[in-house]
Amino acid sequence: MSSGSMTSLYSSSNARLTSIVSHFSGVRLKVVVCRHLGPAMPPLLERKDVDIVLWPEDRSCERAWLLENIKGAAGVLVLIPDFEVNQELLDAAGPNLRVVSTMSVGYEHIDVPLMAQNGIRVGYTPDVLTEAVADITIMLALMAGRNDGVAYTLVKNGEWCKPNFGWSPFTFCGPQLSTSLSSPTRTVGFLGFGRIAQATLSRLIPFGITHCIYTASPTSQPDTARDDALKAKHNLKGLDRVDIDRLARESDVLFLLTPGGKETYHLVDAAFLRKMKPMSVLVNTSRGSVVDSDALATALREKWIWGAGLDVVEGEPAITSDHPLVKESRCVMVPHIGSATFQTRLDMATCAIDNLIQGVFGGEMPAELKQSA
Amino acid sequence: MSSGSMTSLYSSSNARLTSIVSHFSGVRLKVVVCRHLGPAMPPLLERKDVDIVLWPEDRSCERAWLLENIKGAAGVLVLIPDFEVNQELLDAAGPNLRVVSTMSVGYEHIDVPLMAQNGIRVGYTPDVLTEAVADITIMLALMAGRNDGVAYTLVKNGEWCKPNFGWSPFTFCGPQLSTSLSSPTRTVGFLGFGRIAQATLSRLIPFGITHCIYTASPTSQPDTARDDALKAKHNLKGLDRVDIDRLARESDVLFLLTPGGKETYHLVDAAFLRKMKPMSVLVNTSRGSVVDSDALATALREKWIWGAGLDVVEGEPAITSDHPLVKESRCVMVPHIGSATFQTRLDMATCAIDNLIQGVFGGEMPAELKQSA
Repeated sequence: MSSGSMTSLYSSSNARLTSIVSHFSGVRLKVVVCRHLGPAMPPLLERKDVDIVLWPEDRSCERAWLLENIKGAAGVLVLIPDFEVNQELLDAAGPNLRVVSTMSVGYEHIDVPLMAQNGIRVGYTPDVLTEAVADITIMLALMAGRNDGVAYTLVKNGEWCKPNFGWSPFTFCGPQLSTSLSSPTRTVGFLGFGRIAQATLSRLIPFGITHCIYTASPTSQPDTARDDALKAKHNLKGLDRVDIDRLARESDVLFLLTPGGKETYHLVDAAFLRKMKPMSVLVNTSRGSVVDSDALATALREKWIWGAGLDVVEGEPAITSDHPLVKESRCVMVPHIGSATFQTRLDMATCAIDNLIQGVFGGEMPAELKQSA
Repeated sequence: MSSGSMTSLYSSSNARLTSIVSHFSGVRLKVVVCRHLGPAMPPLLERKDVDIVLWPEDRSCERAWLLENIKGAAGVLVLIPDFEVNQELLDAAGPNLRVVSTMSVGYEHIDVPLMAQNGIRVGYTPDVLTEAVADITIMLALMAGRNDGVAYTLVKNGEWCKPNFGWSPFTFCGPQLSTSLSSPTRTVGFLGFGRIAQATLSRLIPFGITHCIYTASPTSQPDTARDDALKAKHNLKGLDRVDIDRLARESDVLFLLTPGGKETYHLVDAAFLRKMKPMSVLVNTSRGSVVDSDALATALREKWIWGAGLDVVEGEPAITSDHPLVKESRCVMVPHIGSATFQTRLDMATCAIDNLIQGVFGGEMPAELKQSA
């Protein structure tokens, strides 16, 4: 791995200046870091201008430890599995707290309006995980279409050699992601059409995809200029913003890449799934709450759709072996590892540390959440 | 699935003419088909100008049945798992045999020089499976890099919910296929650079791949015009034909897409694997014989390379659960399903039937193997 991006920690002359001022004025700010973040940490730990309080164990930090140690801190760096950032935490921290930095693109664990009311800045790590998540989105589309959960398990169980494996012209066949001689068009659909969806679409183009449809939040404005440009760039026969009914009916592969929360809760339910094509594949690499798991299990069992590839499931990580989706052979699931690459986690850690340091010294944070109180 | 491609069965006016002549002259030719080929079969079975003898069971046909039924046949359609097409089969068929059509891109099961000596034409099904194999090649590269065999198994075993799953910033991390902020270059390597390799390269471009290197057969001529055109088309920083030593040393992801046989036997051995990068991924979707399985298992166990994704293994399908590669957690294996999509198998079946019919009537076969006696 390159350590090139770590230099960005030191690249802001603004922060450097603030840091020097802080140093000479004798003020030493305290920051709490809830987890060792790997190779991105040494530059932080070597800083002379802040007091770093680091949770010493290689597991999620304990709430009691955090409440004790955050006292008087100017900044705190949290991770998704950590406890909620709420009034209790603010009370424990006291009036010095200036910034909460989360090493994640999601911020459901942070009471954002409360932070705004208290003038506390929030940093997060969008963009840097776009490529890693788009990668795994393509992988899950292929795995779900090509029966690769079952195929992989068969080989690992030593059943390839057994007579009942029996090759036939259609053994293990599934729908093909790419276009082919006898099937020259393919429509991909996106629920949510932000950065990750567009990075996924780019990856799909050389598979011969001919049409793209998407459904965006009803409150968002259409962006026809962007859509026209994307359609031309990718040489698509169609790129259209459609209603959710058409999205369900026309997608050969449907990608869920939308934020979680109330607005998108169970948008993919039984009624939606019943409209989908019998050979279609559903991929969710955004938030589990978008899908009604019981409805999806029924859809797979009763063959309303062909297969599903999931990096996220409602209620995760409490997913036991008798979960209805775990029991479906046409459901490929991985444990929320969309951004789990060394490169991306390094970039996320670097961004979160940058946000923390810039935040406590009043500098420009590389990724600050826009807040409205 | 579209049935559009089936019309090509009837599209050659040459064959149609021969067929009409044959019909009115009272000669009815016999063809043997070793397996029902699914949706591509009805147009063949409805033909009035040939006698179709079809193995009636849904398993590989028996040698004894074939030897009995091929007597007097003008053509035979075989599949990879069927018995060898050799002198014994020719003797059983007698002098009427004009064509052997295999529903496969490989033809290791056919004694090609013997066919040439006897004036028997050979049909196969190249090209139509290029896209399906390129798809699964991308899938295996992603799965092997992202630990998805292990991740998938963990969820299926109900271990996601267990405390020992324990999220950490680097849980399940692997090397990222796409480029990233901190890792902006990526070199893909190909052993063999034919149709499937080039279709795979196309799919890799939106992942941000910057360099491509390949090793071709030493007897093949360099094609710098093609390479320059590909480099420009894909906006690559480099596209170079290299020796096998450099291929091993520089590839971040290495794809084996070369024919099998003596020339490529165990090209990937311990010496080769020791030269590879520790974070590199090896993908084999061509022939198992290219890789020394024991050496690869050692390379994975001793972390000479990061991971491997295999659709083919030497000695398949006799791969038991104590096979050294099955036991390696960083090895993702699927049971030779590279072309296993409904669309591609339909196209392969259609091509094989077309080859058979055109061959028996002396027409132009859509994919005839060039033979030298």
